[in-house]
Amino acid sequence: MAKMKALVIKDVGKLVFEDRPIPQVKNPDDVLLKIKTVGICGSDVKIVEGKHHFKPDTILGHEFCGEVVEIGSHVDHLKVGDRVAVDNNIRCGFCDFCRMGLTSQCVEIKTSALGVMRDGGYAEYCLVPEKQCFVLPDMIDDVLGTQVETLATVVNGMNQLMMLPYDYALVIGFGPIGYLFAQFCKNIAVKCAVTEIDPYRIEVAKKCGLTVWNPNEVDIPTMISEYTYGRKADIVIEATGNGFEQALKCVTPGGKVLPFGMDSSITANVVPNEITRWATKIIGLYLGQNTMVPSIRIFRENRIDMDNFFTKVISLDDGINAFEDLGLDLKTLQRIPKKAMKIVMKP
Amino acid sequence: MAKMKALVIKDVGKLVFEDRPIPQVKNPDDVLLKIKTVGICGSDVKIVEGKHHFKPDTILGHEFCGEVVEIGSHVDHLKVGDRVAVDNNIRCGFCDFCRMGLTSQCVEIKTSALGVMRDGGYAEYCLVPEKQCFVLPDMIDDVLGTQVETLATVVNGMNQLMMLPYDYALVIGFGPIGYLFAQFCKNIAVKCAVTEIDPYRIEVAKKCGLTVWNPNEVDIPTMISEYTYGRKADIVIEATGNGFEQALKCVTPGGKVLPFGMDSSITANVVPNEITRWATKIIGLYLGQNTMVPSIRIFRENRIDMDNFFTKVISLDDGINAFEDLGLDLKTLQRIPKKAMKIVMKP
Amino acid sequence: MAKMKALVIKDVGKLVFEDRPIPQVKNPDDVLLKIKTVGICGSDVKIVEGKHHFKPDTILGHEFCGEVVEIGSHVDHLKVGDRVAVDNNIRCGFCDFCRMGLTSQCVEIKTSALGVMRDGGYAEYCLVPEKQCFVLPDMIDDVLGTQVETLATVVNGMNQLMMLPYDYALVIGFGPIGYLFAQFCKNIAVKCAVTEIDPYRIEVAKKCGLTVWNPNEVDIPTMISEYTYGRKADIVIEATGNGFEQALKCVTPGGKVLPFGMDSSITANVVPNEITRWATKIIGLYLGQNTMVPSIRIFRENRIDMDNFFTKVISLDDGINAFEDLGLDLKTLQRIPKKAMKIVMKP
Amino acid sequence: MAKMKALVIKDVGKLVFEDRPIPQVKNPDDVLLKIKTVGICGSDVKIVEGKHHFKPDTILGHEFCGEVVEIGSHVDHLKVGDRVAVDNNIRCGFCDFCRMGLTSQCVEIKTSALGVMRDGGYAEYCLVPEKQCFVLPDMIDDVLGTQVETLATVVNGMNQLMMLPYDYALVIGFGPIGYLFAQFCKNIAVKCAVTEIDPYRIEVAKKCGLTVWNPNEVDIPTMISEYTYGRKADIVIEATGNGFEQALKCVTPGGKVLPFGMDSSITANVVPNEITRWATKIIGLYLGQNTMVPSIRIFRENRIDMDNFFTKVISLDDGINAFEDLGLDLKTLQRIPKKAMKIVMKP
Repeated sequence: MAKMKALVIKDVGKLVFEDRPIPQVKNPDDVLLKIKTVGICGSDVKIVEGKHHFKPDTILGHEFCGEVVEIGSHVDHLKVGDRVAVDNNIRCGFCDFCRMGLTSQCVEIKTSALGVMRDGGYAEYCLVPEKQCFVLPDMIDDVLGTQVETLATVVNGMNQLMMLPYDYALVIGFGPIGYLFAQFCKNIAVKCAVTEIDPYRIEVAKKCGLTVWNPNEVDIPTMISEYTYGRKADIVIEATGNGFEQALKCVTPGGKVLPFGMDSSITANVVPNEITRWATKIIGLYLGQNTMVPSIRIFRENRIDMDNFFTKVISLDDGINAFEDLGLDLKTLQRIPKKAMKIVMKP
Repeated sequence: MAKMKALVIKDVGKLVFEDRPIPQVKNPDDVLLKIKTVGICGSDVKIVEGKHHFKPDTILGHEFCGEVVEIGSHVDHLKVGDRVAVDNNIRCGFCDFCRMGLTSQCVEIKTSALGVMRDGGYAEYCLVPEKQCFVLPDMIDDVLGTQVETLATVVNGMNQLMMLPYDYALVIGFGPIGYLFAQFCKNIAVKCAVTEIDPYRIEVAKKCGLTVWNPNEVDIPTMISEYTYGRKADIVIEATGNGFEQALKCVTPGGKVLPFGMDSSITANVVPNEITRWATKIIGLYLGQNTMVPSIRIFRENRIDMDNFFTKVISLDDGINAFEDLGLDLKTLQRIPKKAMKIVMKP
Repeated sequence: MAKMKALVIKDVGKLVFEDRPIPQVKNPDDVLLKIKTVGICGSDVKIVEGKHHFKPDTILGHEFCGEVVEIGSHVDHLKVGDRVAVDNNIRCGFCDFCRMGLTSQCVEIKTSALGVMRDGGYAEYCLVPEKQCFVLPDMIDDVLGTQVETLATVVNGMNQLMMLPYDYALVIGFGPIGYLFAQFCKNIAVKCAVTEIDPYRIEVAKKCGLTVWNPNEVDIPTMISEYTYGRKADIVIEATGNGFEQALKCVTPGGKVLPFGMDSSITANVVPNEITRWATKIIGLYLGQNTMVPSIRIFRENRIDMDNFFTKVISLDDGINAFEDLGLDLKTLQRIPKKAMKIVMKP
Repeated sequence: MAKMKALVIKDVGKLVFEDRPIPQVKNPDDVLLKIKTVGICGSDVKIVEGKHHFKPDTILGHEFCGEVVEIGSHVDHLKVGDRVAVDNNIRCGFCDFCRMGLTSQCVEIKTSALGVMRDGGYAEYCLVPEKQCFVLPDMIDDVLGTQVETLATVVNGMNQLMMLPYDYALVIGFGPIGYLFAQFCKNIAVKCAVTEIDPYRIEVAKKCGLTVWNPNEVDIPTMISEYTYGRKADIVIEATGNGFEQALKCVTPGGKVLPFGMDSSITANVVPNEITRWATKIIGLYLGQNTMVPSIRIFRENRIDMDNFFTKVISLDDGINAFEDLGLDLKTLQRIPKKAMKIVMKP
């Protein structure tokens, strides 16, 4: 049985290369993808760090695109040779959430995610249900193709925020998610600023032409207040997981806060009376939903500035080192300064 | 100069009768109302208790209706003899919030409220700007007319909640606000329950035919989960000011929480990660807005069951005692068991 | 091979009984249902009349519920013995509309509908894809169960209308669809009226306690104007297919028109300038979408008055006569006065 | 009594200069503006042409900004010397529409418009109610300041459209309104095209870098279909008044049509069945509403490309000729080719 190289999470802090059998299509609804490219997501870093759930012994990697090399007996919409992006979150289609259209709350979504609970894309091949695959148009190359699902989560945020052309926007945190939100803000909002503490990423924000503030150096509520002529932000997008209290201080009366970043270790003290008095809208949101096709549309027309998004494209062989570039000391599992925004691997 | 009897807040805990001159119209946009009826609001109780801002020496009372007895020189839409309900929250019309349609966040709203910062309706007469007055149709009597503004705040909540006929709803707290929300839920939602700790009000809820739970006796998240076949509530209306954490535990993934009750002394611990993971929508909301006319429509057609809302109608002379019925020991300023839902006074 | 009796549409005006082989599960995703009950839909009448597309030689009937008697090899969520309602509109799940959440515009929806383009429920058995089946709780009996999908289309309308408790509502046409909308209006809207020309159905509306007007006898725009104190309707639901112009005359400035009834032979003259000037919102809507579960919720709690909905339950053997009761002279294909609201058959 | 020069509409086709007394503030809520600039609106052209209502003997001009030179006794928020833009549509504040927040449907709006029914800005001075004035920040010059209200109507359209970053957009008609909508589309939509028949304006569209099609030369539904890979437009903005039927042919299933241009002489034939089948949303909309402040925000940050909007700035003395440049032969009242997008006059 043919083998392939794969990067496997064995346990917290333990990310290792293994030789694994190349999977074969058994389920009639599956296709086998030859992985072309796979991005390293911030949640992959959190998995290794022990801050995100996962199933031990799983091949990591959920931001990938590949070529269909084998199809199951019931696969009707894909054919061998198709180049596809993947939505790694498999929804059952039968629970009440799925059936009421809120598929991001599918009761099985936590147990079935590719690259988290079931083998993903840090490998040469991956089995994927047909319905999770989305054919890529030529204008989206393999590297950009890894980010279709990432953008899909951000587009889901945009669907909920309903940003208007006179909104003042603030994005807290300028990792890949903050980067993508900030590009939409730059296109749509009347004014937009971002915050970030990591020096590398602050530089990226500047290269993008964005107004960027370091919360370790300035008081963000003061800055946003001045920036908006006393109004504060109509929309605050929290993209770190630990800035919820900050977000509430930066939003204007009647404004919207999107708590998008996730960090289960954070607790926030809020005064509900303030939410009422200032008519704050807090819009929780998880994953993408119906947004893979929209993401493809946006990338196809090159509608957001991705010039400073990809730091480098490396070989899968160099994948372990990439986690250091993304701010995780693999020996101590402590955070270190980042040297990258997004890193993509080629198996 | 003719005098009138008025119930005045001198300081925390100090509510006294005074003889005051009957006001006269000076401002060309004002009308003078002869007060017909005035309700005692929960926030009046909080003012006396020292838990709500107010201006000392103010005649309390903001839930009132009256008859126009004198009009200013620029009053064009009202005439002497009109019977009107009053919106006690005066909006400036010139700040950016007013001009963008979010009048409930008017920058002057806190400084101009009738019966809180400026003389209100616990008296025989009151000066009111014309634009705050809404002519009452005959089908709404004087007692019901006191509640038009109260209902207007609730209708504003309904505007934001967009309740659907298949929503499961939970109302936390069955005071007058919870009562009104519960009636809408009974009409619209597929199933609805309320919580309350006060024995008197629990009985009122039962008389209304509502499912009611006492959080001191049962675990509300368990109850709502069973009641909704495991789903939890699509909509949770928090109408006490201290149930925000509870509300978050009772709402279904993707559901809405309306923190409506106000208590500035309460802090809540929330895990923002949970709001994100479960896609919770928290909809802060303050006062009514564009909802006086809708409230009149609803009362005119008798569309909500008000049979158990008014506990009694008393003379203004008995007004001080009414605060005891509403749960405040005026000597100790401690809370005691309530003996009423809503009390209305006639000057 | 075992046979079953089935009512088959051969051609326009030609509805005949045939003996058909009892189908067997071949597709791994299908289940075989023993039909318990099947409703006769207005569109079934239109099919026979020649006013609705269909595939000749198809067993009609798309409003049905049944018991699972056989399951395909990949059926995971249903088991033999389950009692289910059926969504007869099969969505492909792969076209851009499906993938963007607008499954009611699935590009295959017109070619795959059960009981229209593929054998339906006017028979003893029917093959149905598992995902189209929804398990019925005990509180919904077999007769009511036939209407889950019908209600699902109406709930989809409600989702779009976002009816508020102070809306004045008008329902044009009191067939089964108008009936269901009117019940929601009765629960939610501040005031509601219906129009109907058929004497039988006018009587049903009266039995339901509804205000009903016959457009052949009174001028509807005048009536709705008076009924709403000069305002006209905030929401007009057109449930006949030929009342669009009427609807535009009955809606208040800024109000909503839902053109729900379908009749492809009707052309309307509209003045776009009026739509702009009066800020009319016209909300086109097709089929149900994510609304089967909501419908089950609503029926389970008995939240709409169905007392006057079902005219009779008959044997499938009497099915042809039922079309006469529903207003179609099968000899002439002319319309005749109706003698029924909804008729349900038992095979 | 001091005189001023004014351009007055006497009757259809009869636009003349008159010497008029400089108005003085009598109403305590009014301010007197010294007009700095006034734009010529397409509806001014229609007034002269006889296609728009007006009051004879009125000074035309409703797109203006000026300096406050005198204030009424009750004016509290403006002071002499303030430079302001004007919302020419005065809303009464007391009708049910105003009080429910739908001020654009104010029952008095048609009878009180500045420059249409009451003297406007084609003059040296104009009386304006304080509440209609909006102080301009320095970054908005006098010429741009004339377009705040124009943009406000377009922003109201954007508020209703809720354009998303993956929407395909089509703008029918590239006059000033189409120009402004197209700039928003260029910022927000994933792809956008405009249609126009006038050669001058086609050139302006090209200068703006827009995809532009001439409906006299190509078939627009075919073009939009190809342009969107078969999808058609998610959003169609009709900005001519005569393209409603065209709009319906260009919109994708589930998409939105905004009939914004106004021409009361046009009747459209629509098949309501198609609106239902294809789930089209038609969003009527009139004037601006709560959108003056948002417009100022947008202009202040220079968020839309206005480089090709203003064709020329002329003296009021040359005002009559400008109507010829805008496509109206004043002798025959026939339409002729345009030589301008927007012309602004300085009195």
